[in-house]
Amino acid sequence: MNFSKRITSMQESPIRKLVPFAQGAKAQGKKVYHLNIGQPDIETPESFMNSIRNFDEKVLAYSLSQGIPELIEAIIKYYKKYDMHYESDEILITNGGSEALLFAIIACADADAGDEVIVPEPFYTNYNGFSAAVDVKVCPITCKAEEGFHLPARKSIEECINPRTKAIILSNPGNPTGVVYTKEEIQMVADLAKEYNLFIIADEVYREFVYDGLNYTSFGNIEEIQDRVIIVDSVSKRYSACGARIGSLASKNKDLMKQILKLCQGRLCVPTLEQIGAVELYKTPEDYFESVNQEYDKRRNIVFEGLQDIPGVVCEKPTGAFYVVAKLPVDDAEKFTIWMLREFDVDGETVMVAPAEGFYATPGLGRDEIRIAYILNEDDLKKAMSILKKAVAEYPGTTI
Amino acid sequence: MNFSKRITSMQESPIRKLVPFAQGAKAQGKKVYHLNIGQPDIETPESFMNSIRNFDEKVLAYSLSQGIPELIEAIIKYYKKYDMHYESDEILITNGGSEALLFAIIACADADAGDEVIVPEPFYTNYNGFSAAVDVKVCPITCKAEEGFHLPARKSIEECINPRTKAIILSNPGNPTGVVYTKEEIQMVADLAKEYNLFIIADEVYREFVYDGLNYTSFGNIEEIQDRVIIVDSVSKRYSACGARIGSLASKNKDLMKQILKLCQGRLCVPTLEQIGAVELYKTPEDYFESVNQEYDKRRNIVFEGLQDIPGVVCEKPTGAFYVVAKLPVDDAEKFTIWMLREFDVDGETVMVAPAEGFYATPGLGRDEIRIAYILNEDDLKKAMSILKKAVAEYPGTTI
Repeated sequence: MNFSKRITSMQESPIRKLVPFAQGAKAQGKKVYHLNIGQPDIETPESFMNSIRNFDEKVLAYSLSQGIPELIEAIIKYYKKYDMHYESDEILITNGGSEALLFAIIACADADAGDEVIVPEPFYTNYNGFSAAVDVKVCPITCKAEEGFHLPARKSIEECINPRTKAIILSNPGNPTGVVYTKEEIQMVADLAKEYNLFIIADEVYREFVYDGLNYTSFGNIEEIQDRVIIVDSVSKRYSACGARIGSLASKNKDLMKQILKLCQGRLCVPTLEQIGAVELYKTPEDYFESVNQEYDKRRNIVFEGLQDIPGVVCEKPTGAFYVVAKLPVDDAEKFTIWMLREFDVDGETVMVAPAEGFYATPGLGRDEIRIAYILNEDDLKKAMSILKKAVAEYPGTTI
Repeated sequence: MNFSKRITSMQESPIRKLVPFAQGAKAQGKKVYHLNIGQPDIETPESFMNSIRNFDEKVLAYSLSQGIPELIEAIIKYYKKYDMHYESDEILITNGGSEALLFAIIACADADAGDEVIVPEPFYTNYNGFSAAVDVKVCPITCKAEEGFHLPARKSIEECINPRTKAIILSNPGNPTGVVYTKEEIQMVADLAKEYNLFIIADEVYREFVYDGLNYTSFGNIEEIQDRVIIVDSVSKRYSACGARIGSLASKNKDLMKQILKLCQGRLCVPTLEQIGAVELYKTPEDYFESVNQEYDKRRNIVFEGLQDIPGVVCEKPTGAFYVVAKLPVDDAEKFTIWMLREFDVDGETVMVAPAEGFYATPGLGRDEIRIAYILNEDDLKKAMSILKKAVAEYPGTTI
């Protein structure tokens, strides 16, 4: 039997494909510090499960395709804090940010027309995955470790745009880079979108994870482009509720939302219980974010200082999300990662990182880069960074 | 802003688009008997919520992309009762049967190649919706009310097959028709699939809803085609847990499942809580199905007798699921449905049905047909059927 080209051409998750090596390390009795996945260790607010425990309907029925009204209202209220003003038919609840992305891509780009989306690389790998699944081509805009993964000059972006380009997809704060775009960068993208008639699919699931007192500008804050902005959002990182799979789409383009509602109707609805729990998440007091941010800020400093302490590393200090991409003085970051799991340890302990090549669409780029997610407590992170330093020193493929 | 052709060409849910008329009827103070939606009134087994209430992990983390092992094991055990034998890497848990269908279509058919799927009509409308969303063409095989919506002769099906045909999608027991295919029909489809190298995407979510002591044959029971069979399943109807959104894919084609796992990884995971609840659902004692089936059987008889009692109705007795499609002596079933909601009542009560035209891909077919879902209690159903009879008699567009 033959499978479709679109599915066979999808790459395997670059993070998940190394899982067997981590399992092998553990089977050898090694302790593995996981810096490779974006699964926060922060506790989910108790209000989530408490509200679900109180659910007592006798029949767990389909809910509304657009999402339950209480959750839509909670999200509208949440956005107001950021000076983003949505009406109830401008929000759709989705199965995680993932489904929001998938639906946005389907709505903007056709397959048989050869439509394209442009995406700054390195990017969240599923931008590529979802685009491939629905036969939309990804054109990368290369960003560089040396520039802290900020956007290149306008001209470089324009070179990626052609008549088949329908949208730009980007995350801000950035996964995997930790970049937070400046107001000027956001405005540049907005101007390009207007000039070339593109949608902006803005993945802002890390909106609260911004450090150093930086001002955060959402694509929802640029008045003149609201007919072309689609905000992808999720409770996963914001409230450490990744397993809830509650995301959302927001757009002031009501016609677009009416079109995407048809996709929502196709999959009938999002689970009822997590929507009820998510309503409570959105009531979490503001000081929750303050304490979570302080925690991540400390971790960020540990990781960044740890990286600075490794000779040959290229890395600007990240300012958002809980990731950093660093260039290492190694021949091949995937080989290095596998080597750390299979052949290396410090007193029975080792580290797993995510090789960054899979975050690029341009062949060959990112081969010497890794992504670190700082989702461990301070002590573990310090230990992991010191193990990583020793690993770079001992690895046979180290280039300095 | 222009939207993609694939999304603008998707039809609105033929069932959900009439909701405003039902709301209007209620605003007039009318009671509306809903025979239009497949939302069972049967209580969800308590074990579902009880197990979820006991969940006490501090962090609601991502779970495995393929689904939690306990649920996969529970489904393997469930299928054994039907003489279907799967291994753990032959089952994937999905966001409802809907996602299972979407992933199966993406895996079998390409967009840019103009790939096609054949589907007996009338069909579950989302077969069309999901295919459109991923740019796959649906070719309908027309089935007729007069024949109880059984499959046409082999030759008629062969006429729909061309080199771009990749799969046949069908539900058994059938939504919207209530048909249960005979062993001979299943074998004919199996033979065709082998001869023309097609996948069979078998939506068997109503597997337990079979009446009159009929023998049920699953596509999972035909040994020689197991490399091409993909079973789509769900707890929604089986355990009256539509709002849980837990479905699954099963196939003995391990390579195919490896491919589809990439799609599962793309959307990360299915909600953890409902998977935990679903494990308990699969432990529901067998007598649950007996009592539920007896209840539906009684309802089926009420609806069928009610239809027989309306002059000019064409309808064979359905033998599965909880639906029936009937041809009415009216000019246009959608107009008739709207008329019942807007301009008709019997002592302040009226009925909402689903016009069947939206279940057909062939233009014009089904215009005088409706789908009835028998998901109300006996008394309400009797009332609803007597109101329907009066409505047909009084409706200005009645053709006899």
